[in-house]
Amino acid sequence: MPKTKNWQWYLEKQNEFEAHMHALIQTIYFGETKYQKVGIVESPTFGKMLILDGDTQSSQKDEFIYHEALVHPALIFHPNPKTILILGGGEGATLREVLKHPSVETVKMIDIDQELVELCKKYLPEWSNNAFQSPKTKVYFEDAYKYLLEDNQNYDVIISDLTEPLPDSPSNKLFTKEFFSIIKSHLAAKGIFVLQASKADCHNLELHTIIYNTLKQVFPAPQSFASRVPSFDANWGFILAALELNPPLKFQEINQRIKERNLNQLKYYDAETHEHIFSLPKYFREALKKQTNILEEAHNNIIKEEAGSFI
Amino acid sequence: MPKTKNWQWYLEKQNEFEAHMHALIQTIYFGETKYQKVGIVESPTFGKMLILDGDTQSSQKDEFIYHEALVHPALIFHPNPKTILILGGGEGATLREVLKHPSVETVKMIDIDQELVELCKKYLPEWSNNAFQSPKTKVYFEDAYKYLLEDNQNYDVIISDLTEPLPDSPSNKLFTKEFFSIIKSHLAAKGIFVLQASKADCHNLELHTIIYNTLKQVFPAPQSFASRVPSFDANWGFILAALELNPPLKFQEINQRIKERNLNQLKYYDAETHEHIFSLPKYFREALKKQTNILEEAHNNIIKEEAGSFI
Amino acid sequence: MPKTKNWQWYLEKQNEFEAHMHALIQTIYFGETKYQKVGIVESPTFGKMLILDGDTQSSQKDEFIYHEALVHPALIFHPNPKTILILGGGEGATLREVLKHPSVETVKMIDIDQELVELCKKYLPEWSNNAFQSPKTKVYFEDAYKYLLEDNQNYDVIISDLTEPLPDSPSNKLFTKEFFSIIKSHLAAKGIFVLQASKADCHNLELHTIIYNTLKQVFPAPQSFASRVPSFDANWGFILAALELNPPLKFQEINQRIKERNLNQLKYYDAETHEHIFSLPKYFREALKKQTNILEEAHNNIIKEEAGSFI
Amino acid sequence: MPKTKNWQWYLEKQNEFEAHMHALIQTIYFGETKYQKVGIVESPTFGKMLILDGDTQSSQKDEFIYHEALVHPALIFHPNPKTILILGGGEGATLREVLKHPSVETVKMIDIDQELVELCKKYLPEWSNNAFQSPKTKVYFEDAYKYLLEDNQNYDVIISDLTEPLPDSPSNKLFTKEFFSIIKSHLAAKGIFVLQASKADCHNLELHTIIYNTLKQVFPAPQSFASRVPSFDANWGFILAALELNPPLKFQEINQRIKERNLNQLKYYDAETHEHIFSLPKYFREALKKQTNILEEAHNNIIKEEAGSFI
Repeated sequence: MPKTKNWQWYLEKQNEFEAHMHALIQTIYFGETKYQKVGIVESPTFGKMLILDGDTQSSQKDEFIYHEALVHPALIFHPNPKTILILGGGEGATLREVLKHPSVETVKMIDIDQELVELCKKYLPEWSNNAFQSPKTKVYFEDAYKYLLEDNQNYDVIISDLTEPLPDSPSNKLFTKEFFSIIKSHLAAKGIFVLQASKADCHNLELHTIIYNTLKQVFPAPQSFASRVPSFDANWGFILAALELNPPLKFQEINQRIKERNLNQLKYYDAETHEHIFSLPKYFREALKKQTNILEEAHNNIIKEEAGSFI
Repeated sequence: MPKTKNWQWYLEKQNEFEAHMHALIQTIYFGETKYQKVGIVESPTFGKMLILDGDTQSSQKDEFIYHEALVHPALIFHPNPKTILILGGGEGATLREVLKHPSVETVKMIDIDQELVELCKKYLPEWSNNAFQSPKTKVYFEDAYKYLLEDNQNYDVIISDLTEPLPDSPSNKLFTKEFFSIIKSHLAAKGIFVLQASKADCHNLELHTIIYNTLKQVFPAPQSFASRVPSFDANWGFILAALELNPPLKFQEINQRIKERNLNQLKYYDAETHEHIFSLPKYFREALKKQTNILEEAHNNIIKEEAGSFI
Repeated sequence: MPKTKNWQWYLEKQNEFEAHMHALIQTIYFGETKYQKVGIVESPTFGKMLILDGDTQSSQKDEFIYHEALVHPALIFHPNPKTILILGGGEGATLREVLKHPSVETVKMIDIDQELVELCKKYLPEWSNNAFQSPKTKVYFEDAYKYLLEDNQNYDVIISDLTEPLPDSPSNKLFTKEFFSIIKSHLAAKGIFVLQASKADCHNLELHTIIYNTLKQVFPAPQSFASRVPSFDANWGFILAALELNPPLKFQEINQRIKERNLNQLKYYDAETHEHIFSLPKYFREALKKQTNILEEAHNNIIKEEAGSFI
Repeated sequence: MPKTKNWQWYLEKQNEFEAHMHALIQTIYFGETKYQKVGIVESPTFGKMLILDGDTQSSQKDEFIYHEALVHPALIFHPNPKTILILGGGEGATLREVLKHPSVETVKMIDIDQELVELCKKYLPEWSNNAFQSPKTKVYFEDAYKYLLEDNQNYDVIISDLTEPLPDSPSNKLFTKEFFSIIKSHLAAKGIFVLQASKADCHNLELHTIIYNTLKQVFPAPQSFASRVPSFDANWGFILAALELNPPLKFQEINQRIKERNLNQLKYYDAETHEHIFSLPKYFREALKKQTNILEEAHNNIIKEEAGSFI
């Protein structure tokens, strides 16, 4: 029997003209929560993959790149991060990385989609690796916007690990100047905000640079950085924004903090990786400089999913 | 949220150069039995689909075409079919159609793959529609070849509803001159044999005509016929072979038998459909005439799955 | 070098959820006329293929099926076809088949797209096979609607070989009750009209049955028929409508006319093929009966290309 | 007319399970030289693309990344590069970048495939941008291996811009320890060798690290670096190997040399980009350390194209 024939495929559309095809070993779960369509599949190349509304969220093979890049630069920048807030981050891997810093006393995670978090616990336990069971962890299933409006706590580090701010998404209003100001007001002294900030390749830098420019209206000197995540078929952008203008950490300082915090087991992040992801290609820096658009609540429709039929 | 994006696809490869892409609503089941890889999926166009080793076996939307074509011409040709033998037919839909003929007293079904039959009962109950529960039904999970060698019963109609005779398939030796002779020896007087006989379009008639020519070595006047089954992206061939050379049934006789047997509720088959499927296009008849190859056990490697990588 | 890797593909979308993938050997021509996007490609399976606006128009391997089905039933039905009008038919293969009938004195072809006809002559000469050079042939590059409004000739047979009546297509108004009445007024006594009438499979019969029902408002007893054309991944529908209600031709009469007209070299059409294509499956006949929609100029927007993005 | 439907696609297979789909605006050229299958297509996202044997070689939108990364680090490392040798580089863009360094007196380019070079000049003139017309340029259409065996010149910088060393490719023997020794023997004092060195993502680092380890047998301290090239759906690896062990250039030195050589118009490369591409992620450095395989002529079959059918 021709048992090796691949017949199940996951086609991730990037725009009207580009897609990546992944052959699948199996579909582990397929369903719909109140907020999104969820697929959990297994690929021979990338292992288990979480797919929300057709977009890859993370894969077993390379989620370490995405989650280490999202978490460690921000926490390493902070001399003594104790209270951490995560917005989104349903898989629990952002939580997992945060808890590796011994100074952390509490991590609060606000995710709108409880069903998704339960699915991740059940089908993707490698992602959270028991982080949900930590006594330091508190999870709230609420809308992050509403939660922060009513919350009167401050945080050393706030990490935004949300889905893309497409027009109909609950994430849409969480990438605006207004919301970034709310974030800022919840940062403790020396506080740091970091967020996943969309694709960052030479042909699709637009949204990333708009988010960057929006942050610049609120924070003194946001810094873009980017990591190549192969399962996304993309270079992924992040932005770090500190409350205060700090001198950049030196190579030796980063390694020193990694050592002090017992983070030598990380697979992606260390001082050289830091240098790699924070030094940007020339065209990237120029695109950041040129961007003048800002995301604001009143007219937050700059971000459009590309229209048109795929074929 | 862009909830309409299609990301799950079933790609059915037809050869190295052709494939049909079906978007999927969901994967209902995915697993492997002792004999084959089983997929049960749902397509917006064709409803539930059963996929074995990457090939569509039947779809909810058009399985009535395949199963009515396989069963009714053979049973209508027989004046009084009482004992029926089905080889394969795991979904139970062949059984379902056979049981619609009131003269039928017993239907024996021999399928090698018990796990598959259980999966079909569970996930595709519309196919068998309780036919497995009929007191007339007897199901044996055995190799059809071995079963018939030891069986000393005769049957009015034998229906072969097997997977394609690819080199490594258990179906391979069930499409040979030798096996067709065994079949013949199990036909009662006026007995009729019918089998699914692969694709039958102008660019892929080869295998069908070889099976036809093989049957011609054993039966007096086999008759090819074909039905278009859209979910297969193919015109599907069948061959009917009677023990005795009979004059063809006339239009009125077919309708008369349909009426007598209360088969007016069929969706595909009646006298005009019969005329449609048994009158073949000119190029088809000429291809049947020209074929000289025969499938024999000793060197049954004529049938090759097309080689080469798909991309 | 891995010279067998297929990297060029033609994806023919059938609707939002279904597509057929053809690997290509080469793209022979790619361009845009005033009216449509033209692709001429070569497939290992189907040879050269003509693609207009993404839809297969005909392939070298199986165009004989489509063109023989479109032309010969209509001309055979007519006892003595002398004057023929073709609407569309840019490839010249409809013309080629018409000219095989020795009684034909003039064939007029009206195609809106001169550039396309020139491309077909240059790249697909096998299709027309010198038919454009026949002294019986007259080609006019005009809008068929306008031409017929001003034309005061009558024709023995009118053949409509147009592209699908999609909303924005120039073909749209050529599939209406109003236009069919204009056609009728240009038929000579015993005149016959035949047209390609879209896909005709169990899951996409809608448009075909609407065209049929529209013709029924104008002609006494239109007859649907259908031929499987593999390169279309479809069963293709046609409709024949005679000015007068005639008894159907008998099997022997068809073969007699074929013989008299020296049409023994046809590859698809003869009396048995005629029986095959004019006897329709039961579900098809029932769908024809049930259809009540009519295409009219005033509100000819029943036909919608299926919306939504492909992925 | 649905003029926006995409029907022409380029599917770039990465292995048996992964592929990237590019919709195409047009196929500009398709043919076969003595050495390889050549496709020149246009994509809405990446502009013109050159495809050899199914693999993307470069795209109009992002070839600047690949070619600046290949050329400038090597030439900037050299204090005064005068004589340059390019192996492969048929598009002429490597040549174009080399000629931007004012110290360069002669650039010799050895490409086995004259027909390909002519096609690139004709269809992709933006790539070479008249570099072939420079009086400093000398192009030889020969096998690089044979050429270097007989050549008795030395070069300041040798740039290997060859296709992947697949088993049947003429490039295969140009990635071995033996050939790297021949290269070394053609380097002038302070000479530098740089080569494109395959994909370099976390799931496909194998070949890159083998090439690296092979170079380590011949050169004192080769340095891997990598640039994200979106049209390749990959992070692309390069390796730089100097004849002498030099201290790395400092940030200010790089910018100083860029300024002195009037390279301020580069789009990708400058000191910060240099830092970005030469600082590697942690997992990448560890993979380089662990590799023990070496490519040698005697048994150079380590590199296998992934087998199996795509679907």
